[in-house]
Parts: sequence; structure tokens; C-alpha cells
Amino acid sequence: MTNTLLLRAGLAALAFTVPTSAFATPTQGSGVAWDIVEGLTTEIGPRPAGSPAEHRARDWGKARLDALGFKNVRIEEFRTRAWTRGPESAVLTAPYQQPLAITALGFSVPTPKQGLKAPLVYFPSLAALEAAPGGSLKGKIAFIDHAMRASQDGSGYGPYGDVRRRGPGIASRKGAAAIVIRSAGTDSHRNPHTGVTIFPAGVAPIPAGAVSNPDADLIARIAARGQPMAIDLTLLGKPFPDAPSGNVIAELPGRDPSLPIVLVGCHLDSWDLGTGAVDNASGCAIVTAAALAAQKDGQTLRTIRVLWAGNEEMGLTDGGGAYYTKLHGGEPHALAMESDFGADKVWQVKFHVALQNAAMVDKVKAALWPMGITPHAGAADGGEDVSGIIKAQSLAVIDLGQDGTRYFDLHHTPDDTLDKVDPVSLQQNVDAWAAVLKVVANEPGTIGKAAPEKQ
Amino acid sequence: MTNTLLLRAGLAALAFTVPTSAFATPTQGSGVAWDIVEGLTTEIGPRPAGSPAEHRARDWGKARLDALGFKNVRIEEFRTRAWTRGPESAVLTAPYQQPLAITALGFSVPTPKQGLKAPLVYFPSLAALEAAPGGSLKGKIAFIDHAMRASQDGSGYGPYGDVRRRGPGIASRKGAAAIVIRSAGTDSHRNPHTGVTIFPAGVAPIPAGAVSNPDADLIARIAARGQPMAIDLTLLGKPFPDAPSGNVIAELPGRDPSLPIVLVGCHLDSWDLGTGAVDNASGCAIVTAAALAAQKDGQTLRTIRVLWAGNEEMGLTDGGGAYYTKLHGGEPHALAMESDFGADKVWQVKFHVALQNAAMVDKVKAALWPMGITPHAGAADGGEDVSGIIKAQSLAVIDLGQDGTRYFDLHHTPDDTLDKVDPVSLQQNVDAWAAVLKVVANEPGTIGKAAPEKQ
Repeated sequence: MTNTLLLRAGLAALAFTVPTSAFATPTQGSGVAWDIVEGLTTEIGPRPAGSPAEHRARDWGKARLDALGFKNVRIEEFRTRAWTRGPESAVLTAPYQQPLAITALGFSVPTPKQGLKAPLVYFPSLAALEAAPGGSLKGKIAFIDHAMRASQDGSGYGPYGDVRRRGPGIASRKGAAAIVIRSAGTDSHRNPHTGVTIFPAGVAPIPAGAVSNPDADLIARIAARGQPMAIDLTLLGKPFPDAPSGNVIAELPGRDPSLPIVLVGCHLDSWDLGTGAVDNASGCAIVTAAALAAQKDGQTLRTIRVLWAGNEEMGLTDGGGAYYTKLHGGEPHALAMESDFGADKVWQVKFHVALQNAAMVDKVKAALWPMGITPHAGAADGGEDVSGIIKAQSLAVIDLGQDGTRYFDLHHTPDDTLDKVDPVSLQQNVDAWAAVLKVVANEPGTIGKAAPEKQ
Repeated sequence: MTNTLLLRAGLAALAFTVPTSAFATPTQGSGVAWDIVEGLTTEIGPRPAGSPAEHRARDWGKARLDALGFKNVRIEEFRTRAWTRGPESAVLTAPYQQPLAITALGFSVPTPKQGLKAPLVYFPSLAALEAAPGGSLKGKIAFIDHAMRASQDGSGYGPYGDVRRRGPGIASRKGAAAIVIRSAGTDSHRNPHTGVTIFPAGVAPIPAGAVSNPDADLIARIAARGQPMAIDLTLLGKPFPDAPSGNVIAELPGRDPSLPIVLVGCHLDSWDLGTGAVDNASGCAIVTAAALAAQKDGQTLRTIRVLWAGNEEMGLTDGGGAYYTKLHGGEPHALAMESDFGADKVWQVKFHVALQNAAMVDKVKAALWPMGITPHAGAADGGEDVSGIIKAQSLAVIDLGQDGTRYFDLHHTPDDTLDKVDPVSLQQNVDAWAAVLKVVANEPGTIGKAAPEKQ
């Protein structure tokens, strides 16, 4: 026992000499938000939907939210489809031998254990694949290239994300034995980006993987030389139909419990490759710390409910957001917001609020102006985990838009780790969210249903 | 046949639409140097010492040097010790479950196939490990942390590289079952840095691996919490005693073949994780293109010999440089130079030249001043592949020092790929080298033996 205590004392002393990595921010973070991101990434790590690690994360979340003083903290378990990774590798075998950095996409089906050896056919874009004649890929593996670039609002994820979401289904319809895509990402490291793909009803699932940008560059250079390419592809990940997941819910009760609540969401699950620091421990950290900060000077008028959703990443129709809507769709909500775009600074705000609440919108704008956060055109839409309840109740929504320039460097890769979170930016998010919550959770008038046609 | 031709034509057309990755330089490179880096990384890829890929690289090199008009192009094969990677993985099993991004160090011996499960003991530095009592690590796995930072001249590789070179031997002497180190690298990606380790005579080799910086950060954070750590380590790479390697030699004959030659070196082998773009296809590209450029306006007075050495990375005493010295140590050399520090811009020049050649040194300085390259203190030492002949013949040396700020982000990692080479900086290297070679290869007077005590 004495030895154990000495060891603990010794290791505690080491904490003062523990170096941080080269790119880590020079100051360590602190505070509620940082502690959540640090804790989830350090003590849980990767927490894919349906896994024992996601279960541990729920227990961790409940304990943390209880300790922070939230009320009615509870885990709401549900069942979901999920997918689990297996061994994976790929080697270009012709015209040159080159190992490739590859990862399977969620809902890929497995290749044979000994791998799938087939010609690799280069398509410069999703449109080029779509234009290929039906059946022309029989016995072949399709490669889709593209040119996603970083943008501050992350809007490239729509069209370039479609290469991942829709490409595999299209390749299957053309008869392809499998598909490999250039990662939907903007970095230049040998860390491919995973993420779910969707095989529409009636389309046979095929093995589907993504290579890193440098590997895709290599394939493009080789394709440009004009010699036939072949690949030996092993992707043993597979879907499973029924897995446990769950949401963690917690509340900071308002002074008037009869008023419709304000819902703030994020997701607790992460992809398996990294530790889910920016996607999305940061989001849970931001909404949680902001809810507390909004009540720092006393209870808000309305209850603020925090939703740490399970299975966002693999939840097509059966994720945490859908389960929340099913369970809580009958309870009165006033407004919903979500943080699920990393931890870099908030720079814009968007609204989807009834015209009758123009004065509340002006108060929000006035609270954000001094922080350099300005209104931008386009409708707020919340995020995956709150979109179900927003749609079901035609809820008002406010989006705090973060700088997404770096986001798709890290998104769904092994590089989504704590060192990528800047504690100063993280705190700026908390401050911006707290400013908004102070206004909306203290709004005494009716917060109206937003028009289905977004304003 | 028609179909094949159509396919080739179609793919050639695609070349115009092939995108480059996000961080690639906007302009594609061109010219002799770029074509060598692009060709070696695209058509050969990873080429570890002793492997069939290194053999293919020699054949590729000979063909390329012949095509470029070099004379006496030849492959000089030798035998060498080498090491080959096996399956590798690591999971922290206590106090938290966390998969780690790990890679084995060269000359690591294998763990049992089913992995090695043992307590992991944290040391904040190599000095802390050295201070541990003998036998105190019996049955345990040592972890060495450190705080390597990027520097323009790369000088951190000396002390921090010792964690990799000397750490495993020290851990073995303390009784450790294995060792894991923080990578000797300055990046923050989940790509660990490999490289050889050295077990001194009489010290039992142990399994030795490096984790990436974000993984080392995680281990440091967990160590700081003070709970015992355990790891499940699988590293199946192993040494083999006798493998084929070889140097590729080529010459641009001078007008006076009786004069001692100028030797310019680089190495052809690479680590297996990346495609060896900056380490060291770029070096071979620079010295080769510069030798040609130095003769563009007519033959130089002295012969310039190019050495593309085999097995630099794993060659402790039996690499390409040692074999070159053995084979060519009796031939008159005047001066040697090497390029083996990436492809970023040259910013400094260092000399190790006899005092009698002060006028030649002044001419070199005058040629480099207009390029913004300035003399710096400290002695030139060439590089691993030419150090044997330099020592054997007390040769004069000139070092063109490159900006190494980014070098140890990439060094020995999967990220050492073509997109990291800036074609503009690569060409600046060629221009600087050509300027120096024009002076030294046209030096009519004796180029003296440099004093053993470097000036």
C-alpha cells in the first residue's frame, strides 16, 4: 500500500515534466469544456456506435453530468444497426507494387478473407462513374477521384461527401466487385477518412474503402501513365443488425418548468480510428459548459436540456436523434441547437426562427456582435442529433457556425485527437453558446413554431 | 488491341483532369530532379534495404542515369544485414482501453505472436531511464517520453534521436521485456516514426517500437493520473543476417580524367512506411540534376561521380557508403558532398576544406550569395553515404544546409510522399548544387586534404 502511494506520488510529480507534442497548443486547457474533451479522449478514447466503449462512454457521461450538478441525468438505451471494422489492407499490384493506406467505409461488406484481386478502373469524379455503362464494371473495382478543398463553412462536405455516401451504391449498380474512393478529406497525410456509405434498397452492398489523399494522388499519377492497374483488396469489416446504443440526457431546470424547454445537442459516439476529440467530444463539451455558464448568475427561466446522443455516425434512421424524437416527441420544446463541427472558433450565426421572435433574434445578434460573430444568410438547421425533433415539432433553431477550414483534415481519421483542440477556441465556443442560451432560455414570450419553409 | 489503345487514349485524356491533393503545391513540378522524385516514388515506392523493391530501384536508377547521358553507369552489389517489418499493433489495456498507433524500430526482435502483455512504466526522458536501478524493469515494458522540437538545422535529431538509437539497449540492460518510445519526430499525426535502433555487443535485443506523438501525449496524460498502466504489444518484425543490396554509380567525365574526382552522394533505399520522397529520392534527384546542370555549358575539368547508395537506413557498418569506400577507396577523390535532408530550400553553406583552397571557398561563397545562401560556422561533414570515403581519404567537404523545420515531421513515416516535395524548393536545391559543382569541378589547382581536425 505504501509502495502504491509512493508510486502515485511519484507519477503525480511527473505531471510537471510531461511534455506535449509539437503541434499542441502551448497552454494546457482548463475548465468544464476542456475537462470533458480531455476526459473522454483520455479515459474512453474511440467509442464507435454499438460498441462496449460507447457503453463505457455513456456511464462516463452520466457520472460527469451528475458531478457537474445537472438534474434528471439518465441513460436512455436503444437498439440500433451498427458496423464493426475488421483487418484491412490494400496493395496496388499493377503496373507497380505499392502498398496503400486504406480504411473501410461504414456498412461496407467484407471481401474474401484472402483478399479480392481485380483490375482497378479510374474515374476522375462521381459524375464520370455515373456515366459509365451499366454492367461495364463487372469483375472490376472502381476508383473514384475528386478534388475536395477546405472551406471555412465546410460546404464541400455536401458534394464531395457524396462520393462516399453515393459512390458505392452507384458502383454496385454498374456491376463493380468493390469500390475504393479518394477520402472525403482535405489533408495530405496517410490517414484515410472513414464514414458511412449508403446502399439504397435493392442495391447489393459491396466492399467499400477510402485511401488517403497521398495514396489517391499516387493512383491518379499511375492512371495518367495509361497502363492497366490492378489491386489486391482486403476489407473485413461488416455490418451487424442489432447492437446496443443509448442517449445521455441531463437538465438544468428553469424557474418556470411549464415553459417549453431549450434543447442543446451533440453526439457521444465517435469513429473508431481516432479518439473523437473534434468529432464530437468538443461538441458535448461546448453545449454542456455553455448550459452551466448560462445559469452561472442564477437559474434561467426555461429548462435547458442537454442531449449527448448515441450513434450519430452510423445512425441512418435509427440513431440517437431518431430515438430522442420517438421518446420525447410529445414534450414541449421551444428551440434546439447543436454543436457538431469541431472546436475551432465560431464566426457566424444563422437563424430559423418565427418572425414573431424578431426581438429575440436581435438580442442574440447584439450579444454576439461584441465577440465578432456576425449573422449570415441561409437557414439554421441544427444538426443530425436534433434534426428529428426539430422536424417533428417545427422547432426554432439557431446555428453557431464554426471555422471549418481544418475540420475535414481531421474528420473521421486517426488524427482526431486531443492535441487538435485549441483550448482558447474551445472556450470561445462556450462563451458564444452561453451568450445565446442566456437570451433564449430567458425568453418570456412564446417562441413560435418556425415556418416549414425556412426563412 | 483497338480497345487497349482506346483505353490508353482515354486515360491519357484523364491526365488533364487528375486533381492533386489539398496540400500539394499548385504547380506540378518538372525537370530532371522532379522527374526522378516523381518516378521513384510512383514507379517503385517504398524500397527498404535488402528488399526486392530496393533491387527494382537499382535497375530503375541505372536505366534513368543511362537515359540522362551519364557514363560508366553500373550497379555494384553487396551483401548486408537487414530487417523486415511484420504485423504490429499495441493496445493500452490499463487503466483505460486505448489502441495505439505504433511501428517497430529497425533491428527490433519479435514479441510472441500472440503479443506481450506487461506493465508499462513511464520515463519522462532517456536520462530518467538511465537512472533506473539495474533489473528494476524485469517483466515490464519501458516507455520513454521526450520533447523533441523542430529546428531549422535539424540539430534536435542528435539528442532526441538517441532515445531511439540508445533507449532500447539501455532498457534491455535494466531487464525490460520490451520498449516503446515517443517517436523521434516533430509532427502531430498518428503516423509513428521508424528508424534503426542499436543493441550494443553483449546486450540482448528486445522488441522495440515507437508510438506517434498524439499516442505519446495520451500515455503521458494517463501516466500523470497515477494509475498503473499495462500494454498488449505485438511487434513481429525481425532482423535477417544476409540480404542483397547495392550501389548505383554514374559519371560525367571531366576534361582531365587524371584529376581527382568530385563525388556527390545520396541514398536510394528508403524506409518501408512511406515512399521515400524526402528521404531520400529528393537527394538523388538534386545531386543528379545538379551534376548535369554543372556540365550544361560544357564538360567540367574534373569528373563528377554520382553515388546512389544502397542500404543507408539500416547500414550500421555494412551499408552502401562502407561498400563504396571498400571498392573505391584506392581511387583519387578531390571533394565529396551529399544531399540527405529533404527537399526544402538551402539556406546555409559549411566547409571543411584545406586552408590552401581559400580562393576556391571564396568562389563558392560568391556563387551562393546571390541565392541568399550564407556561410555558417561549424564543420561540413558530408553525410552517411560519403562519410566513409571522406574519412579514408581526409577529403574536402562542402555541405549545403537545407531548411529542416518540416523534415522531422515526415522523416521515416508513412507521410514521406511526393506531395511533401515543393518543386520550387527542389529546383532551388539543384541551382545551388550546380553553382557549387561548377566551381569545384572546374578547380584547376590541387584540392588539398582537409585537416583531420575540422576547420
